[in-house]
Amino acid sequence: MFLRDIQKALGGDIMGEVGVALTGVGTIDGATATEITFLANPKYRSALSSTGAGAVIVGPAHKDLSSLPRIVAANPYAYFARVAQLFSPPQAFERGVHVSSVVHASAQVSPSASVAEFVSIGADTKIGDGVRIGPGSVIGRGVTIGAGTRLAARVTMYDNCHIGARGNIHSGVVIGADGFGFAPDFSATGGSWVKIPQTGGVRIGDDVEIGANTTIDRGAIEDTVIGNDVKLDNQIQIGHNCLVGDHTIISGCVGIAGSAKIGSRVMIGGAAGILGHLEICDGAIISAMTLVTKSITEPGTYTASMPMMKHDEWLKNAVQLRRLDALADAIKKGGQP
Amino acid sequence: MFLRDIQKALGGDIMGEVGVALTGVGTIDGATATEITFLANPKYRSALSSTGAGAVIVGPAHKDLSSLPRIVAANPYAYFARVAQLFSPPQAFERGVHVSSVVHASAQVSPSASVAEFVSIGADTKIGDGVRIGPGSVIGRGVTIGAGTRLAARVTMYDNCHIGARGNIHSGVVIGADGFGFAPDFSATGGSWVKIPQTGGVRIGDDVEIGANTTIDRGAIEDTVIGNDVKLDNQIQIGHNCLVGDHTIISGCVGIAGSAKIGSRVMIGGAAGILGHLEICDGAIISAMTLVTKSITEPGTYTASMPMMKHDEWLKNAVQLRRLDALADAIKKGGQP
Amino acid sequence: MFLRDIQKALGGDIMGEVGVALTGVGTIDGATATEITFLANPKYRSALSSTGAGAVIVGPAHKDLSSLPRIVAANPYAYFARVAQLFSPPQAFERGVHVSSVVHASAQVSPSASVAEFVSIGADTKIGDGVRIGPGSVIGRGVTIGAGTRLAARVTMYDNCHIGARGNIHSGVVIGADGFGFAPDFSATGGSWVKIPQTGGVRIGDDVEIGANTTIDRGAIEDTVIGNDVKLDNQIQIGHNCLVGDHTIISGCVGIAGSAKIGSRVMIGGAAGILGHLEICDGAIISAMTLVTKSITEPGTYTASMPMMKHDEWLKNAVQLRRLDALADAIKKGGQP
Repeated sequence: MFLRDIQKALGGDIMGEVGVALTGVGTIDGATATEITFLANPKYRSALSSTGAGAVIVGPAHKDLSSLPRIVAANPYAYFARVAQLFSPPQAFERGVHVSSVVHASAQVSPSASVAEFVSIGADTKIGDGVRIGPGSVIGRGVTIGAGTRLAARVTMYDNCHIGARGNIHSGVVIGADGFGFAPDFSATGGSWVKIPQTGGVRIGDDVEIGANTTIDRGAIEDTVIGNDVKLDNQIQIGHNCLVGDHTIISGCVGIAGSAKIGSRVMIGGAAGILGHLEICDGAIISAMTLVTKSITEPGTYTASMPMMKHDEWLKNAVQLRRLDALADAIKKGGQP
Repeated sequence: MFLRDIQKALGGDIMGEVGVALTGVGTIDGATATEITFLANPKYRSALSSTGAGAVIVGPAHKDLSSLPRIVAANPYAYFARVAQLFSPPQAFERGVHVSSVVHASAQVSPSASVAEFVSIGADTKIGDGVRIGPGSVIGRGVTIGAGTRLAARVTMYDNCHIGARGNIHSGVVIGADGFGFAPDFSATGGSWVKIPQTGGVRIGDDVEIGANTTIDRGAIEDTVIGNDVKLDNQIQIGHNCLVGDHTIISGCVGIAGSAKIGSRVMIGGAAGILGHLEICDGAIISAMTLVTKSITEPGTYTASMPMMKHDEWLKNAVQLRRLDALADAIKKGGQP
Repeated sequence: MFLRDIQKALGGDIMGEVGVALTGVGTIDGATATEITFLANPKYRSALSSTGAGAVIVGPAHKDLSSLPRIVAANPYAYFARVAQLFSPPQAFERGVHVSSVVHASAQVSPSASVAEFVSIGADTKIGDGVRIGPGSVIGRGVTIGAGTRLAARVTMYDNCHIGARGNIHSGVVIGADGFGFAPDFSATGGSWVKIPQTGGVRIGDDVEIGANTTIDRGAIEDTVIGNDVKLDNQIQIGHNCLVGDHTIISGCVGIAGSAKIGSRVMIGGAAGILGHLEICDGAIISAMTLVTKSITEPGTYTASMPMMKHDEWLKNAVQLRRLDALADAIKKGGQP
């Protein structure tokens, strides 16, 4: 593939041309002479001068930072992503249902879909065109899977859960397990938790990615809802009746308690936690390992992590942290505790 | 279903009666004219005046807050949960073992149990009356599953793990993987970790719920033990040789290290962490994202999360956090650092 | 087994001999008269005087703390682990591929390997001598699994992932799901996330343990790499292009973001988080629930958890935490806020 082939597919301006066809994309440090890389952040400009890449994608402001054959694009990182897609077309797959799989007679599986071995598909479920379902996946009753969506190996979708088109669901994902709802019924002498039946479903939009071993619970009465173009990393937990807005992106190990309402284009850092029944406005950014304990009503970045210290320093500071209110009081009284 | 039908099943007092049969339960904001809702917390009393519900469950103190047909019950939330159960009876299921499943000749499966497709059941395992096992589950050797317990799709129980009656185990759960035990054997020139065989099992009581993708490790020598009526949310990790007391409830993403001893009726908030070899007394409450680093000997609520701030404020406060001990020292010396 | 039999297998010095053959190992508190226990930490010396064990393993410095028949070894804990292994030899297993499993014609499965029921093995994959693969596991194309490695039930290895010899991979593990890489391409009027194809693989060394439901993502372009003798607990997330050095041990629920470079013999406590694109030097120790936000260049213990408090105290201290910078300012100005 030459720069002119890429330009034909994706637009942008060419400056120079490679002498030998490109074979793929590479990182700025690791790319070889037949690979194309990109510069999006000017702080890597020195790496650009020493890159072994055969070509580079740059923004208009940086078009003269390199003398390599190059493509000038408004958003070099997104352009690079699309070039990488050109070099990695979707794998071909066999249509049809593997003989070992068990599909209920009332389920509708598109003839262009692919269902691998050891898959179970329940009654009244609809599998769209070009859908691929990996080995060992279990799809309940009354489920719909939109066109082009891919479920990797060992995905579970419980009854009455729905996902739109072009989704990408990774291995170990569980969609639609019961939300965590129990009413306490204890007296002085005994008692127990009373389960609240979780009869809502899960509705997931188009173009959603869900990382490995992530779980999304079904709603208690109404549905749990995930918008379009939402990107979820691995090991995330989304509680019952959460709403997650379009284009929101959530990093690994995040936990979101029930009935939280997350806006659109929100970005949530890894291992953050969101308490239940609160709202996060559109465009908010939550830092890693931050616990959100009340609603966020204006955009901005919000943080609640402890700064890391050497353990010896931490021990001394932690002592004072426990008596911070007393310290503040001492200051008020004239600095003498 | 009319209020009198509900009263017949569950008790309580009726004030008025619905004109049209109820079809289900609803939230106070979302319920329709054929649904019944509840009021447990007086702060929602204004929502009660505008609810579209056809009937409501209230406590004795709030019986005059609404003129809707209503049921007066001592614990409206628990009563509501039981009403919801009336409207959602357990689904019927087919008895017997699916032809695709592989059951060892020495395993005993009750004729009233249901084993779905692609299930593996090992030697000497006993599956009780009315047990349901979902597709793709893997049950090892010497396992017992008590009457009425349900395993969803893709649950793993390793050898010699036991669960009581009426449990509800969600998809992706792993019970009885090896505990994390390695002895360091390093010298200046080399060495390695030496694995400690994990030969204990897991014993789980009756009426236990285990959420999707939660893991409970087997004991090193003795067993890991989970009491009766314990409720575990999704993505929880319970280390080897933990003991979890009856009625304890643990929210999603909590991690509990090995040999922790958690009392009865303990409540643990989401993403909290419990270090190993410590004890938490009966009735303690641990807040979300709190790290418990030493034993808790008296009931109460314990918290260790950083408060959330705007990132700019956090940056300034974090600087001072790292030198808190020096600040305290300055105060002691007269307020002049 | 008598002490002399253990000594023959593992070395060390014997003081006395048991009168009745030992049947296993036990904890210092729980061992019976036919079990052997150990003392590694002198703080348990009082437990030693009351143990019911029939024999004990001690270090040279503590050889006279007990009059029980005993073995004196340089590293009593590692010695104990090896004794436990003597009492728990690996279970025998049947060689061969279960008739229900689906193995691609181009895959090479060693005749001494064991492939359980409902396993899927892709094209060009190589399964080494003595490998065991549990029920419901899904192995992609171009995978290699080294001799003696064991995959428990329901493990997923995506295409082109590799693991060395003698590994122990627990149920629910997912190796090689896509890394979390999306380029934002938004304008004022719309846009979306553009997926960066994840075309690297995962390379895992020898003697690696991976706990239940842990996930290790494939690299974006280059590989994600896990060294030799690395021990990973349950529910860990390792992002794309991470490097984890030999002998590093990571506790449960840890999340490591993409391109982090973790050294050798690093120890990471439970539920810690490591941000992406940073380095942690050999031998560093990270405390539980600590967020590592920048590179660590010298060994030592690093901590960033909030100390736990009673909730009432926490409420008061948290108020001051939010105005810590103002407090510090007040001190500077003479202690009068």
